[in-house]
Amino acid sequence: MDEPAVSTAPMLEPASGASADGGLVRVRLDIGYDGTDFSGWARQPGRRTVQEVLETALGTVLRLPVALTVAGRTDAGVHATGQVAHLDLPSTVDHAGLARRLARLLPTDVVVYGVRVVPAAFDARFGALRRHYAYRIADRQFAAAPLRRRDTLSWHRPLDEHTMAEASAPLLGQHDFAAFCRRRDGATPVRELQHLDWRRDADGVLVGRVAADAFCHNMVRSLVGALIAVGDGRRPPGWPAAVLVVARRSGEVTVAPPHGLTLVGVDYPADADLAVRAATTRARRD
Amino acid sequence: MDEPAVSTAPMLEPASGASADGGLVRVRLDIGYDGTDFSGWARQPGRRTVQEVLETALGTVLRLPVALTVAGRTDAGVHATGQVAHLDLPSTVDHAGLARRLARLLPTDVVVYGVRVVPAAFDARFGALRRHYAYRIADRQFAAAPLRRRDTLSWHRPLDEHTMAEASAPLLGQHDFAAFCRRRDGATPVRELQHLDWRRDADGVLVGRVAADAFCHNMVRSLVGALIAVGDGRRPPGWPAAVLVVARRSGEVTVAPPHGLTLVGVDYPADADLAVRAATTRARRD
Repeated sequence: MDEPAVSTAPMLEPASGASADGGLVRVRLDIGYDGTDFSGWARQPGRRTVQEVLETALGTVLRLPVALTVAGRTDAGVHATGQVAHLDLPSTVDHAGLARRLARLLPTDVVVYGVRVVPAAFDARFGALRRHYAYRIADRQFAAAPLRRRDTLSWHRPLDEHTMAEASAPLLGQHDFAAFCRRRDGATPVRELQHLDWRRDADGVLVGRVAADAFCHNMVRSLVGALIAVGDGRRPPGWPAAVLVVARRSGEVTVAPPHGLTLVGVDYPADADLAVRAATTRARRD
Repeated sequence: MDEPAVSTAPMLEPASGASADGGLVRVRLDIGYDGTDFSGWARQPGRRTVQEVLETALGTVLRLPVALTVAGRTDAGVHATGQVAHLDLPSTVDHAGLARRLARLLPTDVVVYGVRVVPAAFDARFGALRRHYAYRIADRQFAAAPLRRRDTLSWHRPLDEHTMAEASAPLLGQHDFAAFCRRRDGATPVRELQHLDWRRDADGVLVGRVAADAFCHNMVRSLVGALIAVGDGRRPPGWPAAVLVVARRSGEVTVAPPHGLTLVGVDYPADADLAVRAATTRARRD
């Protein structure tokens, strides 16, 4: 079948806040990837990472060295449908054609859905209000559907989503999540868990949806691991909350495998509130 | 994370119609696969096929040579979530444990969801009332979502699902589909197209759903190829119906790529009507 030439309309939005004087403009990228064959987002020597693949493709298109700032530095094997990054580019660059030219260069396991100029105060990392993740578990069949095995955990015991929901409720709100964090880089383990629920999709796959202002390292997968232990009856519903109050990393919590996890979206404030949000977050993290 | 031992309840249904006298019983398998790395369903020397992988695994578990009869002999690269096959086994075999033992042996790109004893008159191929296929096309982004790229065609022109629906309507009903068939094995090209519609899912992916009593070779992919030409404006909405009435394979119809296509289900009559249906179909095909 003949593939017609790309003829999609430019995805560039009106350059609100963009400089037209030959200076730099800030550009937002909306990104998806199949994390299976990546060693995560962040560059590592000798490893294939999403950051390295994207920065290399951007560098080839733009003939400039580029550095991306990302909303969620996902681990090896974790996927994204709603990742967000930003970079600064000369305003003379043809941003409108960037997504189209990237599509020709990028491998099939990473895609840039959108490229648009944003206000200079937009910060993909420090400006984010919250990150949304989803975790998929196939527990009722003998295995995940073959076409979804890359982003679905197969679990061979039936899971009770009602006890998992019961165990999830007391975890909501602002807490010291040290029990569910792998500590690194001195970041605070105090986070606000804003959403955590478990529902079955049309195929019976159990989907956990989790949102927080930010997550410490391994936090989503540790929460999921603890809740699976409740769902299959190995732990009582009150156990995850009891682990939480200890506020110390627990050896009893198993970290769920990465391939069930997908970063599905990142929320940002309205343009007028961008600068305040980024400054607040940055101050709290430092 | 520790994978608990399999403890799922037996999937064997009450053995209605099964022989308990040491003879043979007919067993139905419900099957799914990611067709990407298979040369289709049907065995071919030196190729990896779904039939060969399943028959080998069954033979290992049962210590018997087995032969599967299948509802839809899918082409290379075509997927299935609702494939059905049958085989005959000694009634002394532990059918209840078969799905569990197969799950340990099968590769991750094929799964047997269910194993159950069915009436001796059940015939996966000749007993089927209709086959249901789905074809997925991502036309609004620069590429299919990376996690669905294996079962989604990327189309770089926008498709108009309304003109595609308009072009689909006159194809419904019983017709000589020779224009959309690659002729083989002397099978009749007269088929009854029972359903053909186009809708966008929650992610904006355009999904064509097609059902017929049976399909001749390449029929779904030829219909989809013709309708894509309408959807992106290269052909007028009346063109597929004009091709149909010629009733001769048309060189102007491009066959859509296999990876967008999935066999999603097969309908069978109630148990009491199985024997009549199989005899009728067999007579018509012969």
